[in-house]
Amino acid sequence: MKPSHIEHIGIAVPSLEAGIPYYEQLLGQKCYSIEEVAEQKVKTAFFKLGDTKIELLEPTSEDSPIAKFLEKNPKGGVHHVAFCVDGLQTALNDCEAAGIQLIDKTPRKGAEGLNIGFLHPKSTFGVLTELCEDPNK
Amino acid sequence: MKPSHIEHIGIAVPSLEAGIPYYEQLLGQKCYSIEEVAEQKVKTAFFKLGDTKIELLEPTSEDSPIAKFLEKNPKGGVHHVAFCVDGLQTALNDCEAAGIQLIDKTPRKGAEGLNIGFLHPKSTFGVLTELCEDPNK
Repeated sequence: MKPSHIEHIGIAVPSLEAGIPYYEQLLGQKCYSIEEVAEQKVKTAFFKLGDTKIELLEPTSEDSPIAKFLEKNPKGGVHHVAFCVDGLQTALNDCEAAGIQLIDKTPRKGAEGLNIGFLHPKSTFGVLTELCEDPNK
Repeated sequence: MKPSHIEHIGIAVPSLEAGIPYYEQLLGQKCYSIEEVAEQKVKTAFFKLGDTKIELLEPTSEDSPIAKFLEKNPKGGVHHVAFCVDGLQTALNDCEAAGIQLIDKTPRKGAEGLNIGFLHPKSTFGVLTELCEDPNK
């Protein structure tokens, strides 16, 4: 497996309303997209810097994974890091063969139409790690 | 302020000995540099992916900021995110003028010869944020 770049950094914020103006100031640019991902119970806001996106994540429900993260980290924080790969299913298989615990054994749909799969932070030194692939490339 | 790219993601690990083989597997590449930063009481290991580095951080002392982070997050985790800017002192001043609390009011030396300055996670939605500048560019 050889990811090409860091596709995005997922950052939990208590609200997009508060988080977007801060990141617009920090990054010197406007948020280019806001999207709700119903399956993951989050609303996302995107910025792009170089070849990497900043994905702000606000929970839309109390049982959202982001709501649980914010219970432990009320101010917010880095929730996950996503690496872009070619051949997501093969990459997930390679990780499993290397002894890395998977959250997703097969790809599912994420924000921006990407196919995604998560590795478990138990076997990734505490960093919730996403692998993703653009099915249109 | 308009950072050009994410310079690196700083990831705390209990030991480089354990963390390096995992990241070599995940990133499909060898660690290209190991460096001790005495001032910050850390040993660092670097990978590069696209225009962003992964900086693994192992504490070299019990009073290292990374040791404190690992007390709360024993497996490790994302410790900070660093953005590359032109004109670091001006960028720090701009942040302060925008009401962002600074850890460093003036630049100091970081790993790889960069000039760096940290913003306080209290005013950055929980993400310890570094601004950095390469003095040789």
